[in-house]
Amino acid sequence: MSDGAEARPRRRSGGREARRAARLHEVAEKVPFLTRTLTPVEVLSEEGVSLIEHNADAILERVGVEIHGAPDALKLFEGAGANVDGERVTFPPGLARQLVQATAPHEFDQHARNPANTVHIGGDATVLAPAYGSPFVRDLEGGRRYGTIEDFRNFVKLAYTTPFLHHSGGTVCEPVDLPVNKRHYDMVYAHLRYSDKPFMGSVTHPLRARDTVDMARIVFGPDHLEDHVVVMSLINANSPLVWDASMLGAARTYAEANQALIMTPFILAGAMSPATVAGAAAQTLAEALVGMAYVQLVRPGAPVVFGSFASSMSMQSGAPTFGTPEPALVLYTLAACARRLGVPFRSGGSLTASKIPDAQAAYESANTLQPTMLAGVNFVLHAAGWLEGGLTMGYEKFVMDLDQCGMMAAFAKGVDLSENGQALEAIVTNGPGQHFLGAEHTLANFETAFFRSSIADNNSFEQWEAEGSKDAITRANAIWTKMLAEYEPPPIDEAVDEELRAWIDRKKASFPDSNV
Amino acid sequence: MSDGAEARPRRRSGGREARRAARLHEVAEKVPFLTRTLTPVEVLSEEGVSLIEHNADAILERVGVEIHGAPDALKLFEGAGANVDGERVTFPPGLARQLVQATAPHEFDQHARNPANTVHIGGDATVLAPAYGSPFVRDLEGGRRYGTIEDFRNFVKLAYTTPFLHHSGGTVCEPVDLPVNKRHYDMVYAHLRYSDKPFMGSVTHPLRARDTVDMARIVFGPDHLEDHVVVMSLINANSPLVWDASMLGAARTYAEANQALIMTPFILAGAMSPATVAGAAAQTLAEALVGMAYVQLVRPGAPVVFGSFASSMSMQSGAPTFGTPEPALVLYTLAACARRLGVPFRSGGSLTASKIPDAQAAYESANTLQPTMLAGVNFVLHAAGWLEGGLTMGYEKFVMDLDQCGMMAAFAKGVDLSENGQALEAIVTNGPGQHFLGAEHTLANFETAFFRSSIADNNSFEQWEAEGSKDAITRANAIWTKMLAEYEPPPIDEAVDEELRAWIDRKKASFPDSNV
Repeated sequence: MSDGAEARPRRRSGGREARRAARLHEVAEKVPFLTRTLTPVEVLSEEGVSLIEHNADAILERVGVEIHGAPDALKLFEGAGANVDGERVTFPPGLARQLVQATAPHEFDQHARNPANTVHIGGDATVLAPAYGSPFVRDLEGGRRYGTIEDFRNFVKLAYTTPFLHHSGGTVCEPVDLPVNKRHYDMVYAHLRYSDKPFMGSVTHPLRARDTVDMARIVFGPDHLEDHVVVMSLINANSPLVWDASMLGAARTYAEANQALIMTPFILAGAMSPATVAGAAAQTLAEALVGMAYVQLVRPGAPVVFGSFASSMSMQSGAPTFGTPEPALVLYTLAACARRLGVPFRSGGSLTASKIPDAQAAYESANTLQPTMLAGVNFVLHAAGWLEGGLTMGYEKFVMDLDQCGMMAAFAKGVDLSENGQALEAIVTNGPGQHFLGAEHTLANFETAFFRSSIADNNSFEQWEAEGSKDAITRANAIWTKMLAEYEPPPIDEAVDEELRAWIDRKKASFPDSNV
Repeated sequence: MSDGAEARPRRRSGGREARRAARLHEVAEKVPFLTRTLTPVEVLSEEGVSLIEHNADAILERVGVEIHGAPDALKLFEGAGANVDGERVTFPPGLARQLVQATAPHEFDQHARNPANTVHIGGDATVLAPAYGSPFVRDLEGGRRYGTIEDFRNFVKLAYTTPFLHHSGGTVCEPVDLPVNKRHYDMVYAHLRYSDKPFMGSVTHPLRARDTVDMARIVFGPDHLEDHVVVMSLINANSPLVWDASMLGAARTYAEANQALIMTPFILAGAMSPATVAGAAAQTLAEALVGMAYVQLVRPGAPVVFGSFASSMSMQSGAPTFGTPEPALVLYTLAACARRLGVPFRSGGSLTASKIPDAQAAYESANTLQPTMLAGVNFVLHAAGWLEGGLTMGYEKFVMDLDQCGMMAAFAKGVDLSENGQALEAIVTNGPGQHFLGAEHTLANFETAFFRSSIADNNSFEQWEAEGSKDAITRANAIWTKMLAEYEPPPIDEAVDEELRAWIDRKKASFPDSNV
């Protein structure tokens, strides 16, 4: 007997298993967000984290950041004690950190249209959201093509349907069939109408941020936003060490409305930062501190999230690479920095450079999602669907990743040490040489014992072959098409929906279409 | 700008990258084993680990184990203070643990034919070895078929060639074309002749263990084994709570020769243990303690490794499932138990139930290998090649997994906090808005900055499409065929080789072939 095949009980027919797997979404425990029970993994000692913080301070003091085209931001920083020279802003050591720590909340709730779906951002909470920003979509039959508003709605519906994502996300794909200057109306509407989970707002122009806030006010009530976060939006730095006007303008609009912002340096290490983990981490921290400080200067107390998107790159071709060890080390390092800073942290996801949901995609995605969970990331954008370095949102990849998100939910609970979990009496009474398949304890734990994948085929080779030798992509295709076919929209107040649609129609008619 | 495609530099042609990737094995750093720098991840508090230990003690006291057909073992346990009733052995609380802790070494070296490949087992060392025990093999062209001695030699050659495995393994696949009672001669010979990394011995019969030791004595010298471990072998319990004669007989042979043993309960939780993490962990610890205590009673001080193979199972079909959260939690839990016990730990690998190296295989494998590394496993069997729950050894899967093993080597080093690693001056002198691609620091770190995958395609979609839209399986196929084509055997003393082959011929001729 060995670890190999001989040691296992004979496998039975998979027909029953297939039927059970189809019931997956009914049995899966529905929680509005994950509550982690495990201590975050540290890859640096406290001294190591201090060194990264010290270097971020040194960067901000010695070279600082440039703020392009945003005189209001320069004025705010100057008033707070930073040194402004043209568009260059440098900070006395510790100032940016103090500005953040003085007023930024440690944790906050993002309220959903359905209160049962309100999420907590920060602390032991982890919120999983779909991928963001792909101009292309891909599915098994249609291949790769530009995203449309129908694709956008489909991904909103899929994210609404699954118990394993807690958030509707933002630009789940670019609806390239709509004019650039008006597509945000349909995107935000889709999140509000086809889902009742929390969502992200438009950031491509301050006016589009304003529209997002106005639409949220129609749905949540005119005064509700003043003390409730209902929109959280993604603001990227222009690394290295630049923040620009359109992003900061959108951030200002949301901050003034007390809505949450994820201030995220987007770094391909080697191109936008040095090619080392400690270098990329220190620079990310420096850039993010400036972004978060800006939000606090606009409106003290407005919720901010420390964001980091860090990938390695092929030093040969300049292409971004994912699932490699170095970005994982950056992630662990910056999660520790965020904890010491006292703000929620956003990073990670299910990232890959693969063009298709093959083994490369899965290895790279798992190698990103594992550190994401173990580091204790609070908000996980790109948790499902990401392909091709973010250029493509994949339907099959989306449901494969959902499966993994479900596993993370089970993992996050940690080890059950209850009497039932210990199962001591079951072992003692069962005795040597008797299998546990029919044991009382096994039967009592039958439904919930193990995470049940909807994608994995665990049948015998013969059964798998008899069912057509399907790979994971083919099985995933059947799952998302079924999910979409069975989708039912959440209820919405008809009057609110009408008001929202009328408002959108008026806005759309008030200025010409444009693709800039 | 967002996290999506817009933020990245333009991708260049991948032709250059492809040529660089082909050089991977030349640049990869060659180390005989990994030395971890990160603190092992804990999923339980100290009290939690104590509870598992307490339950293992309770199992051994209240129900104990059965030892089938091995009166010598019963006598040894009785002599050591255990209670023997027929074939049932129960232990006063703490006895089994004391027997192990009294004489088992905390760490040891397994010596390789080439001293540069000697591995350290225990402590901060992690040794990665190929998969073990599959009757079938699979490759892209030939599909799934029974393994042969040629396949066996191929996998030994591939494991020898890669810098990312540190061990030649044991039954890398079953050479089903050879008679059961003689195939161990050709297997052990293949490890000794086609590789010079450390290897594992035959365990299917005490006489085959004896043959393995005799062959090692021919190669390493007659007295060398007395104070050098050169063979490490895998002994499985017959869970729940049974050890049987053939396995213990093989273990006795190796222990008497002072060779190392991995005492491994092989558990599909739900079938061979309760369906809970804490239950499976306590039972595994109880069973392993008995196995390790037996080895210490046979020969005090003989090196033993605490082994655990734990998978979840489909509660619907009884099939084993891999890459799920629960076995990861068992692994973390038992790694902590092994550290407290003070012996090396074996577990994990790159496990999957998938029949082919698709996304399912990769997700599941990565979800096993990540905990394996993070928990600080010392000896990792099944690190490469495993498919179909261990029924199949895959050629393409093997090289895909090698890539992942390489990534783990990079990860295990942790964050470089040297001055070059910090890159502070590079950031300060580079300044805002300037990319780092041509920076002096980037050029200086060009070759070693990021782990370079040999399987991943990071090219643009257009380039990938122009090159035939290959998936990871197709690319992996090209890699292993090239590795085999370029294989060159390690040198061996011709006289020793001749003596070994003559000895094998004599042994083979001395008794008839049999398939039992």
